[in-house]
Amino acid sequence: MPLATDAHFEKLLRPKKVAVIGVSLTNPFHPANIIFNKSFYGSGSVAYPVNPHGGELEKRPVYRSVNELPEQADLAIIAVKAPLVPGIIRECGAAGIKAAIIISGGFAEVGGEGIALQEELVKECRRHDICMIGPNCIGVYHPPYIDSFFLPPERTVIPKKGAISVISQSGAFLVDQILTRFYEEDLGIRTAVSIGNRAMLDEVDMLAHFAQDTGTRAICIYLEGAGTRPREFYELCSEVSSRKPIIAFVGGKSLKGQRAALSHTAALAGNSRVISSALAQCGVIEATDELELASLAKIFDFYHHRPLLEGNIAVVSSSGGHGVVAADLCEGTGLNLVPFSDKEQRALKKLCTDSIRNISSFQNPLDLTGSASDLDFERTLDYVLSLPRVEGAIVLALPYTPMITSFIGTRLGHVVRRHDKPVAAYIPSLAKYGMVLEGFELNGIPVVHTIQESVQMMQALYRLGLAVQRSRRNGKNHAARNNHAGK
Amino acid sequence: MPLATDAHFEKLLRPKKVAVIGVSLTNPFHPANIIFNKSFYGSGSVAYPVNPHGGELEKRPVYRSVNELPEQADLAIIAVKAPLVPGIIRECGAAGIKAAIIISGGFAEVGGEGIALQEELVKECRRHDICMIGPNCIGVYHPPYIDSFFLPPERTVIPKKGAISVISQSGAFLVDQILTRFYEEDLGIRTAVSIGNRAMLDEVDMLAHFAQDTGTRAICIYLEGAGTRPREFYELCSEVSSRKPIIAFVGGKSLKGQRAALSHTAALAGNSRVISSALAQCGVIEATDELELASLAKIFDFYHHRPLLEGNIAVVSSSGGHGVVAADLCEGTGLNLVPFSDKEQRALKKLCTDSIRNISSFQNPLDLTGSASDLDFERTLDYVLSLPRVEGAIVLALPYTPMITSFIGTRLGHVVRRHDKPVAAYIPSLAKYGMVLEGFELNGIPVVHTIQESVQMMQALYRLGLAVQRSRRNGKNHAARNNHAGK
Repeated sequence: MPLATDAHFEKLLRPKKVAVIGVSLTNPFHPANIIFNKSFYGSGSVAYPVNPHGGELEKRPVYRSVNELPEQADLAIIAVKAPLVPGIIRECGAAGIKAAIIISGGFAEVGGEGIALQEELVKECRRHDICMIGPNCIGVYHPPYIDSFFLPPERTVIPKKGAISVISQSGAFLVDQILTRFYEEDLGIRTAVSIGNRAMLDEVDMLAHFAQDTGTRAICIYLEGAGTRPREFYELCSEVSSRKPIIAFVGGKSLKGQRAALSHTAALAGNSRVISSALAQCGVIEATDELELASLAKIFDFYHHRPLLEGNIAVVSSSGGHGVVAADLCEGTGLNLVPFSDKEQRALKKLCTDSIRNISSFQNPLDLTGSASDLDFERTLDYVLSLPRVEGAIVLALPYTPMITSFIGTRLGHVVRRHDKPVAAYIPSLAKYGMVLEGFELNGIPVVHTIQESVQMMQALYRLGLAVQRSRRNGKNHAARNNHAGK
Repeated sequence: MPLATDAHFEKLLRPKKVAVIGVSLTNPFHPANIIFNKSFYGSGSVAYPVNPHGGELEKRPVYRSVNELPEQADLAIIAVKAPLVPGIIRECGAAGIKAAIIISGGFAEVGGEGIALQEELVKECRRHDICMIGPNCIGVYHPPYIDSFFLPPERTVIPKKGAISVISQSGAFLVDQILTRFYEEDLGIRTAVSIGNRAMLDEVDMLAHFAQDTGTRAICIYLEGAGTRPREFYELCSEVSSRKPIIAFVGGKSLKGQRAALSHTAALAGNSRVISSALAQCGVIEATDELELASLAKIFDFYHHRPLLEGNIAVVSSSGGHGVVAADLCEGTGLNLVPFSDKEQRALKKLCTDSIRNISSFQNPLDLTGSASDLDFERTLDYVLSLPRVEGAIVLALPYTPMITSFIGTRLGHVVRRHDKPVAAYIPSLAKYGMVLEGFELNGIPVVHTIQESVQMMQALYRLGLAVQRSRRNGKNHAARNNHAGK
């Protein structure tokens, strides 16, 4: 029997009745109180507050135990002092509850007695067939059913609903490095899970769930160290990555970082290079800087059909300097700025308006200069994407040049649809360029705010191409081996 | 006689009367028209529009030549077709004008005849003792005197006045990668110069000027390739960098980037590693990603007295994950997360409030958990900065945790002033954390929005320390050599 069945996940992610255990009668900022309020006021589920002392919270009854609830809860969210948790789990088991999220810290991450306490906790969960996330986590965000992120809602932001699912070993990293960036990038979220000490459900279980979840288009993972079950994890990644992109950011790759990870989520150390190479081997696209995770998720969110690049792209820019920087950033990424022949450069020149024809550079990267208009972008992008050897493009669009209008995105989106080749755009981050940005994104072209991210986006399609090729090759080898064995 | 005297710079940067040559009578978006309007409406200078055809612009007279102006101009800003420029310069010479900014493109960057045209242009400038910036540039921004950036003001942003001066070989890079980021980071600008093809004034001349400019606290440079006079440039950097920080971002370091730079600003190729190592040798702090230039400028803007670190720092965080990532990012940077002894960890634990004492980690990075309050940050930062071997700190402050208030910056600023050790802070970029952010910055702690930038900031102080040490050593060697020679 698998550790976590579909029925377990149903109760974890789509609970209709939630018991929040550990609410304080005096401290409105207690994690349990924030979770209770979020559930009570903000979700589609029914929430019951529990505290062994009973009493009242804002004139509503507080239940002494999950056994006293008016109806059986689907899910228990537990935020009490660590030593009390195993006992609470026993009560949950007796009440027939099959899913639990344990917010409380003070287990394996503090060492010593915490380790024994965590073992006891897991034993209790297994004994009662309770599927448990945590401890030492912020739990699950799956709108509109559950949000156990115990942060005051007015202090956080909520990305729109969407198709990216996230697994994170750090709750805080999940909140501001992932969800906040998703919000800023207008990227949609399906489910976000903070696995904390991952004493029971870990990244492998969650990945297996999201792999078969039809609502999940791509999976983002923040891991510390090598993971609890590296072999199972890498095997599962290999199997999943060629049909559903997996993006990972790994913390604790340095010596000091490893030590910190041990006291953070009791994560075991792993060799940095070994981890990166293993991830690449099994088709996981590793993000190596903070902004990259969200921009990689974005490219896969925009390009559902996941075009696979061999790396041959064009860069269309209205700034020579931006083109130079983009060319530098492509170096060593597998991306190749396709050279344009003299004939092609002449053709491009002919397509441009009079004001830029004689001052632009028609090599790759194209530098259309600050006098370029929407039409110049449209015609040159159309031409370069029409070349069979160009597989996609990066557009560096600068809305501060006078001839760019908010219509440029509609024009370029039209071009992209005609050629069905992926394009990523860089637009500076100012709020006043919002109309320009929306013109791009509404027309199917993802936008980022650093040149580097636009390069990383195109590189992600190239890396995915490599992963799929490798997977096909392995599949054939596998088939060949099986044939041979059968003879 | 130097190419550019103080009198020249006075007219270039602080002109009282400006001739804008090339205004169009029909196209309000023509660069010359935008510059004229900006000067006319927005600066403290008097602006005269010039067009060989004369006529009227919005009922105001357009002069046929700089000879016809009611008074002599200090500076000519020229935006006419390239072949006409040498003739205009002759007219400027005849009218006694000693400074010119040439916006027009179509010179060395297009090759062929453009190269000859640029040579002719320089000859004319020299003949008439005209100090010239450009061609193929956006010129000078030095408020309130001059702003020749020919972009509609409503499309750009203007950082506040301040103490950082900027030299850029790309106009567009200057606008959105530098000035826009300065605006977003609330960093002040002193002077920004786009040197374009740098046919006459180049990065060496501008650096020499800013080196002795008392209003300039630090200098940012965007260069393509090795520069026109690498030896002079590096020698000057060596001389300047130990008393005024120089921060550089170099484009055109890859093969493809070099080729693009050649057609952008006729920049010559340079070997990437050679450039980086030469910059480091002469104390220039090289930024290698787009966000870094502004964050490095910020740390030097905040810490005027430029504390020099040997690299021993502490990280104080309310998130274990952020601490792990910061520790990873410090690896290989020269920064060392000082280990805390058991005794020190016990002391730290004692200083914390009850709610976090037993769930926090008091190793370095400190993980005070999401339950940390302002007071926990204040007491732990105070303690770690009081340790003689800790030279500075990074604070990773997450305002979404419930116990953090907008007062935290005032508390921590007080601690920083007491110890006089540099601290950099990471706060997520959401607008709603504005009060928290301002609390930090008003109290002397610079804030950035990626963990990486906070590490880069502290690393900059370490790199500057190395540069100053090297400079002292070279000074001593130099003195020793001289002594020896004197014997």
